[in-house]
Formats: sequence, structure tokens, C-alpha cells
Amino acid sequence: MSELDRRTFMTTVSMASLTRLTPTVDAALAVQDQSLAPAGTPPTGVTRTLARYVLSVRYDDLPDPVRKEARRTLLNWMGCAVGGSRHETVDVAIAALAPFSGPAQATVLGRRERLDILHASLMNGISSHVYDFDDTHLKTVIHPAGPVVSALLALAEHRPTSGRDFLTSLVVGIEAECRIGNAVYPAHYDRGWHITGTAGVFGAAAACGRSLGLNEQQMVWALGLAATQPVGLREMFGTMTKSFHPGRAAQNGLTAALLAARGFTSTELALEGKSGWTNVLSTSRDFEEITGNLGRTFEISLNTYKPFACGIVIHPTIDACIQLRNEHRVKADAIERIDLRVHPLVLELTGKRTPTTGLESKFSVYFAAALAIVVGSAGMRDFSDANAKDPAIVALRDRVTATVDPTLKEEQVRATIVLKNGGRLDKFIEHVVGSVERPMSDADLEEKFLSLTEGVLPQSQSRTLIARCREVEALQSAADLATAARPAK
Amino acid sequence: MSELDRRTFMTTVSMASLTRLTPTVDAALAVQDQSLAPAGTPPTGVTRTLARYVLSVRYDDLPDPVRKEARRTLLNWMGCAVGGSRHETVDVAIAALAPFSGPAQATVLGRRERLDILHASLMNGISSHVYDFDDTHLKTVIHPAGPVVSALLALAEHRPTSGRDFLTSLVVGIEAECRIGNAVYPAHYDRGWHITGTAGVFGAAAACGRSLGLNEQQMVWALGLAATQPVGLREMFGTMTKSFHPGRAAQNGLTAALLAARGFTSTELALEGKSGWTNVLSTSRDFEEITGNLGRTFEISLNTYKPFACGIVIHPTIDACIQLRNEHRVKADAIERIDLRVHPLVLELTGKRTPTTGLESKFSVYFAAALAIVVGSAGMRDFSDANAKDPAIVALRDRVTATVDPTLKEEQVRATIVLKNGGRLDKFIEHVVGSVERPMSDADLEEKFLSLTEGVLPQSQSRTLIARCREVEALQSAADLATAARPAK
Repeated sequence: MSELDRRTFMTTVSMASLTRLTPTVDAALAVQDQSLAPAGTPPTGVTRTLARYVLSVRYDDLPDPVRKEARRTLLNWMGCAVGGSRHETVDVAIAALAPFSGPAQATVLGRRERLDILHASLMNGISSHVYDFDDTHLKTVIHPAGPVVSALLALAEHRPTSGRDFLTSLVVGIEAECRIGNAVYPAHYDRGWHITGTAGVFGAAAACGRSLGLNEQQMVWALGLAATQPVGLREMFGTMTKSFHPGRAAQNGLTAALLAARGFTSTELALEGKSGWTNVLSTSRDFEEITGNLGRTFEISLNTYKPFACGIVIHPTIDACIQLRNEHRVKADAIERIDLRVHPLVLELTGKRTPTTGLESKFSVYFAAALAIVVGSAGMRDFSDANAKDPAIVALRDRVTATVDPTLKEEQVRATIVLKNGGRLDKFIEHVVGSVERPMSDADLEEKFLSLTEGVLPQSQSRTLIARCREVEALQSAADLATAARPAK
Repeated sequence: MSELDRRTFMTTVSMASLTRLTPTVDAALAVQDQSLAPAGTPPTGVTRTLARYVLSVRYDDLPDPVRKEARRTLLNWMGCAVGGSRHETVDVAIAALAPFSGPAQATVLGRRERLDILHASLMNGISSHVYDFDDTHLKTVIHPAGPVVSALLALAEHRPTSGRDFLTSLVVGIEAECRIGNAVYPAHYDRGWHITGTAGVFGAAAACGRSLGLNEQQMVWALGLAATQPVGLREMFGTMTKSFHPGRAAQNGLTAALLAARGFTSTELALEGKSGWTNVLSTSRDFEEITGNLGRTFEISLNTYKPFACGIVIHPTIDACIQLRNEHRVKADAIERIDLRVHPLVLELTGKRTPTTGLESKFSVYFAAALAIVVGSAGMRDFSDANAKDPAIVALRDRVTATVDPTLKEEQVRATIVLKNGGRLDKFIEHVVGSVERPMSDADLEEKFLSLTEGVLPQSQSRTLIARCREVEALQSAADLATAARPAK
């Protein structure tokens, strides 16, 4: 698994690198590294400004599209957490730590166990990331929901929280996390930090701190306590410890908020201090990314969801083939061959010609194209050992060619199906499904959800859970989300 | 408290800087930053070598002086933890987190509360550091015992551990922690990390992993899980969060060992990997400090204990004055004046002429000299508001002069008492008490212990506790240490 996960990760990074090469007006206007401040004057007030903002946001302030994206983020996270809940990684973590858990305060989603809220945060954060199928803020490759929602939902099970309040805290948690990520990306990530864990702890602290009703000073302390507990080195990729990161970030952020609520003091300068988080954990920083345009832009608007259960570098190929299949009702045995023109990274990372297991098949663009044509989907269960050996898929897989085309972006592909009858079907994907430009539809997200939760919850219960996520603002108690994610037996 | 703590810390650092300016044969022989490895070849096996060593050490392998220093380390840590246990920082942490604690598995030393072993580790780590009176490995300014012993003792309350086994795990935990510290000091510290928390998590993982009987692979994983959870930015100094660091390091290291014991996988290259701990958290590293001379040198031999409850920069002055008092039975009113020749940092950090509170008095070399003469000690309770205003001490304080002498090292002082009868008493301190060269005696350590635990435990119980620390190897169950540190009511 180690090498495979590493490659998945490289794919993700690389697509993000492209994003960051596109200069934006915002970036051009940004204050780089205190360059506009008088020489020798350290910036102050960055942490406090963020803390004040986090506490100031009201549900009524959130624009409709932001609320909508927050519900989509919640739905996608919930599906991933329930879907990942039976993974061995979660089993091991529970076996190791449940003997030290406090009262049964919160649900381990998709399971019967109830743990104290700190341990539940950890476990749900692990579950939601264990298949690498959770949301992505492509600007920073942060997976925003894991740290924030895992902590916030556990807290909501312990402390009455309305659905509206829950959703508002979710938005501000992701805002804090992604803004801090923006301030140090890519230098921080390039240094070797798993930014989901290191920035995520702030998101959890901000969301939970808001939910707990901290005052401004306490929120400043909570951010300090978060800063001093970063989680996640990229060296852990390919091991169980990778999904530990969002879980532990959730747990640490919640701990920070709980301590601050009781008056546990911390620094005033968590983010900007000489020995504060951005200086110690990154070689560059841009505080304007944290304090600029607060309340006018929302990072959750940039959140994306993976439609396919594999590295995003082969998503354009799958997208093209599924579209061709659906538009032309094309069958595998009518196909002479499939010719793909792909971004160079595709063959570098997913050039496996003859995968023999489900895991290997995630790293074969040839397999992925054939799967998309034969099965019409590429979900978690489609990359199975059975499909890797399926004669129809394998036969088509061996008729797929892929050629590097350096003019293509990572999110693009040119696919051509040459039919046995001499016909030709072409598809150019300009923006892959799941990108900010071409987001997954609500229906896509529900289908992904159902595919993830299949076998964990009965379908009727999954549909109830979808409805609660979709109508979270109507819930008197956000804890109902967790209740609906607990199997009856 | 903030500014004061900062100054205490600077004093400590600065003395350590002097230490590191002394080149040693070992340092000269060390492989700097892979320089002897073939270009482009990353080092491998550093983590595994350390893991193997940690598991290989047997009690019988430990030289007598190492065992003795381990007992002294235990005694000093226990005194600090019991002595700090009623501090507001501990009260707040318990109030905030006890509602989420698991079963009453382990003792919060000096208090009636019992918490699960993870929370007990946290609380005892906080207590032991809250007065900044714990042990110091001067080469790295790591406070070694806090992370290691806090975790190990809590674990020993849950899982039967003999006194000998406990002591052996204590030694190897401190060995792992300080060797990793040596490998990255000073670059890592200079970058802004509170090395006690960041290296400490490895110490706790190693000690607990050994105690849990991990196999080699599990110990490698435990070190990986430790690496990914560093705790502690120096920005937190002067706030409650500083003492949170050794506590959380203990808790994280114990968590790492517990997860690894159940098969939670992690990287093979926690320390040496491209995105591993030493590369991400430091700008330079020397792996020979980790893997060289294993089993031949023991870092615990370099552990030191603070004799006086203030920044170490004024320890030489106190040392000199107490010696003069005791040798000549000199009384304050026989003294015309006291003239001190001091290292430049003394006046920079502790030049307060007229302190009016106990806290301020820690930052007055003038007060400290007078206190030493009048009271004959400089313990936690001697730096009191009452003493700061005591007429006899204040009168003598105002007859103390201090002059900078750049030829002196930080651990040195020249003190001269000019008597009213025209006599002169001189004392030159070459190595201050509490240094590696002139360690505190066992009797000094016991006196410090009793002074710390006064008011927390009855003196008879304190003496029992001292005896258990002194005879730890005779204990069938190391948990008896904790039992003896629990007040009857």
C-alpha cells in the first residue's frame, strides 16, 4: 500500500502545483512576508484578527452558495466517514485506545462504539480520510472537512448545538484552516508537512471554540494551543498514520478549545510571533491570506469532492470514457481500441499495463478506461480484485493506448474510441468532473454517498442520513446527524 | 509571568550555548549531515537502529552510575510533579479535560484525582514542569524526565511493571529523547521549537514501547507515530501552554506506543526520511549522535538538577553566598557590603534593584545574594512576597553591588563580603552547584524534594516517597511510586 499511496499523493500535489502557477489578482495584491511593514516591525494582531472574525460570523451572514457548499461538504464527509468506518485502520485504533476512553459521549460513525468526544473526534477523522476519498481544497491540498467536522460533530453530541449553529461553525472552521494554509502554501507543504493535519488543528479549534462560545481572548488562546500541536509529516504517507493526521488534528483542536474555555492561557501571537506557527513551520508566509477579505470570500466555496476512488490524475480519462459510454451507449466488444492523449504525469504515475489486484488497478490508466466503459463507474468497490481480473475488462484494457501530450493540463484528456465498424468517437475533457469549474452534482454526491455507505448502513438509513445532511439547518440538534449514522446492530 | 518566564528561559539557553561552544572529541568525529555517505544516498536504518537498541537494553547492562543517576532523575522529577500539582495550570487542565477521561487508572501525583493513563500522563507532565524546577540536559536544554517519566509511571499503574524494568525503560526513554535532541541541537531549537516537547515525544514512545514489550517493527512504528506528533513552539513561553508541552509529549508518546502495540503502521524512516522528523523540523542534523556509541554512553549521565528556584544565571551568586554564610557563620548585620563580579548576562537578566514581590525577586541578583546570606537557602518558598519585603533582607540587598566581569563564564562568580570590622571574605565559584561538574548531592536533592512537597504531602509521606524513589529497583511494582504520591485526603 505504501508505494501506491505515495503515488496517489504525488498526483494530488502535482495538480495543485499547476493551480498555484496561475497568478491571480488577489495573489498579486497580497502583502508578501511583511514586505510592506516597516523594516524590523513584526506584524501583530494576525491571530487576534482571525479569532475576532471566527466569533463574529452569524448564520445570517452566510451567502446562500456558501451554505449550500457547506451542506455538500458535510454530506461528502459523512459518506467518507461512514464508508471508511470498518477499515482495519479504524479497528486497530479503537482496539488500542478504547480502553482509555471516557464516557460514551459521541458516536464512532458507522459503528456501534461510542467514545468520549476526544476519542470520537480522532476515530471519525481517521475514518473520513482512510480511503483518500474526502474533500480537497485544491489551492492547498488540504482535506478540509476531516479535522473540522470530526471534532465539531462529536462536540455537538455532548453540548446541544442547533443545525444552523453547527453549519456556521463548520464554515468558519474551514475558513480558518484554509486561510492559514493559503498563507504558507506551498512552502510549508514542500518542507514536508501534511498540511491537512497541521492547518487542520486550527480549523478544529476555531470551529469548536465558536461552538463552545469562547470569548475573544479564549479564542486567541485556543489558536495558540492549536499552533503548538501540529500533526503530520508527509513521510507517513502510505501507512495508517496518514489517516491518523486529520483525526488527531480534530482531537487536538477540540482539546485546545476545551482548555481555552476554562482559561488555560497561551500566546497572543500563535500565527505571527517570531517563534509562532508560520515562522517555525514554513519558510515563507503571507498574512494577508489570513486577514484579507474576511467575510467577503469563503474558502469553502473552493472545496471539491472526488468522484472516483483513485488518484485524480486519471480522473479526466474516466470522466471522458463514462461520458462516451453514456452518450453513445457504446459496448466494449464494439470497440477496436481506445486512444488516450494524456498529461505527462498520467503515465508517470498510473502507467501500469497489467494490474492484477484491486489496489494495483488504481494505478493503471488502461484499466481505468476499460472499467469506465464496461462498468460505467469508478467507485470504491469498482477497483476490486475481481474487476482487476474480469475477462471483459482485461480484454478491453489491453486495447487501450495512452500517449503523452504536453499541451494538456492535468485536469484534461483527449479520448478517442475507434469502433470495430470503423466509427470514431471523440471526447475532450477541458475541466474534469469534481473540479471547481465542473463540480460534482448533488445527485453525483448522493450516489457517491450511497456507494460508500453500502454494506455499513441499510440503504433506507443511508437515505435518512443524506436527508439530515441536506437539511441540517432544520435540525434542532446537530447530534441527530450522528444518531442517523449509527447502525442498529 | 510572561516576561519573567521568558528571561528564565533565556538564561538557560545561554548557559547551554556556552556548553556547546566546547568542542569534544565525539563532536569532531561525528558524521555531519550525511557528509560521509555517498552523494545522493539518503541514510537509512537510523530509526531502526535506535528502535533495536531501545529494545535490547537490559537492567543488567546499565552501569552503576547510570542507575544511580536514573534514581536521582526519578526523585527530582517526582518532587517537581508533586510540588507543582496544586498549581492553577493543573487545576485548569483537570477542570477542562477530566469530563472526558476514561477509567480511574492512574494517579495525578499530589492530588486525589485518578484519570485514565493518557490524561494522567498529561497532567503529571504539566505538574512536573510548571515551576521550571525540573531536570535539564544542558547540551540540548531538554528537560528529560517530564515527557518520559510522566508517561511511563502512568503506564506502570495500568500494567504490572517491576521497579527494575521501570528504571531501565526510564533510562532508554531519556537516551532516545536526548540523542535525537543532540542530533538537531541547536538548529532545531533556534528555529523556534521547544525541544522538550518535540524530542520528548520520542522519549515517551521509546520508554513506553519498551515497557509494553513491543517488537522491533512495532517500535519503529511507535517512533513514526511519535515523529508525526511533535509538541511545542517557543512562542508559548510565559504562558500555561509551556508546561503543557512535556505533558502532551508524554501523552502523545504513550499513544504512539499503544497504537503501535496493536499494529497501527507508520513509516520506517521517522527520523531520517526525506519528509521525516529531522529534515522537516531542523535545518541541520547529525545522525551519528543518534546511532553512535549506543550502549557505551548514556545521556542521563549528563542530567542536572536545579538547586535554586530561579533562573540559573544567578545560581553561582547564591551558591557563593550560601557557602560563605556556612563557612564563616556570617550574619547580615556584620556585613558592610557584598561585592559581586558577575557574567554580563546576570545584570541583563536579573538586574532588578528593588523587587517588591516574590516573583520579581527571582530577577534580582541583589535580592538573591541577601536571601542566601539571611535565610541560607533559595527554594520555591523562599522567593516569597514576604521575603521580598523582609526588612533584614531588604537592608542587606541594598548593600550588594554587582559588576560585570567578561572573563567569567556563566556558571562562575566572584563574591566578596566586606565586613563592618574591616574583614574580607572571598569566594570564587568555578562550577556552580547543580552543574555536571558539581552535581547536587543526594542530600541536597532530598532537601529540595521536601521543600517542594511541603504542604502537599505530610512530611512522613514525603519521606516514604523519597525512599521508594531511592529504592525503586526493589519494588515489585513501580506503581507503588504513584500510590505513595497520593495524598490521603
